[in-house]
Amino acid sequence: MAEQASDRKRLEALEDLGDGAAYAGAIFGLVGRSQFFAEFTREDIDVLASYMHVYKAKPQNTILQEGETGDFMLMVIDGEVDIYKTNLLGGQQYMTSVKAGTTLGEMSMIDGAPRFATCIALRHTTFGVLTRDNMGRIIHDKPGLGSKILIKLVTLLSQRLRQTSAQLLQYIK
Amino acid sequence: MAEQASDRKRLEALEDLGDGAAYAGAIFGLVGRSQFFAEFTREDIDVLASYMHVYKAKPQNTILQEGETGDFMLMVIDGEVDIYKTNLLGGQQYMTSVKAGTTLGEMSMIDGAPRFATCIALRHTTFGVLTRDNMGRIIHDKPGLGSKILIKLVTLLSQRLRQTSAQLLQYIK
Repeated sequence: MAEQASDRKRLEALEDLGDGAAYAGAIFGLVGRSQFFAEFTREDIDVLASYMHVYKAKPQNTILQEGETGDFMLMVIDGEVDIYKTNLLGGQQYMTSVKAGTTLGEMSMIDGAPRFATCIALRHTTFGVLTRDNMGRIIHDKPGLGSKILIKLVTLLSQRLRQTSAQLLQYIK
Repeated sequence: MAEQASDRKRLEALEDLGDGAAYAGAIFGLVGRSQFFAEFTREDIDVLASYMHVYKAKPQNTILQEGETGDFMLMVIDGEVDIYKTNLLGGQQYMTSVKAGTTLGEMSMIDGAPRFATCIALRHTTFGVLTRDNMGRIIHDKPGLGSKILIKLVTLLSQRLRQTSAQLLQYIK
């Protein structure tokens, strides 16, 4: 059996709400609030949701831990998550908070590199999980939807890279 | 007729070397040197090259200009390109130089946002161009290859975002 990514264990410690299909309606309700879902049809969401699994975290539960290996991304369906990153002094630097409709952990899902930041539930938070294996299945079984998701990921990462680079440039003299 | 992105005009000012198919061998020779082409088979490269068009820039030719609209990415086949970004004082901040095997302009190709940086040929530089329209055709005609290219773009952007964020974090106290 393949070794599980270490942060799958974190999921096991949370409340398991079962298959994502039951949450397709809730996820579809995020269309419009979420950059991610613009251009996704209800049918797209139904298929995507059926490849996801849903968990619920309590306040202060760590969902992702910086430096751990991970192979899934998550999509906040309800609640709020704080994001922290270790700074040069070893302290936890608060970066931002995100709400329903936001995706997290896409980079490790795709490239398998360690988690870049720590994500902690600020309140009761429900989120869907898409693993690398299931992303591969979507690409194989539903190539049109697979491309749509990948294009969306490229777009999101481009926007973040533009923002981060612009911030960095303020410091480079 | 659809309005052309403004930086297509920059391509027209360069030497037109014709269809990318003739360069498939040269591009395949970059596998191993290039992050982008790891995992691409010779057949993948043959197909990808057939959707590209190849140009040659002279030293000091501007290939991409920050702020212009653009709808293509490019792949350096031979030569060297300097990358600059306008800093807060309005000056041109040298960022880095890139060689054969590097891709540039992926973000605008996907999301249509203005070019984020200026790219100037340091020496005679041959590069292949992949437009958004042709990327769409690959996704439609060859979904397997389309997904492979998109996954590669997500991976590249993830790596750049990790690097840029890590740099930024050095400045945030």
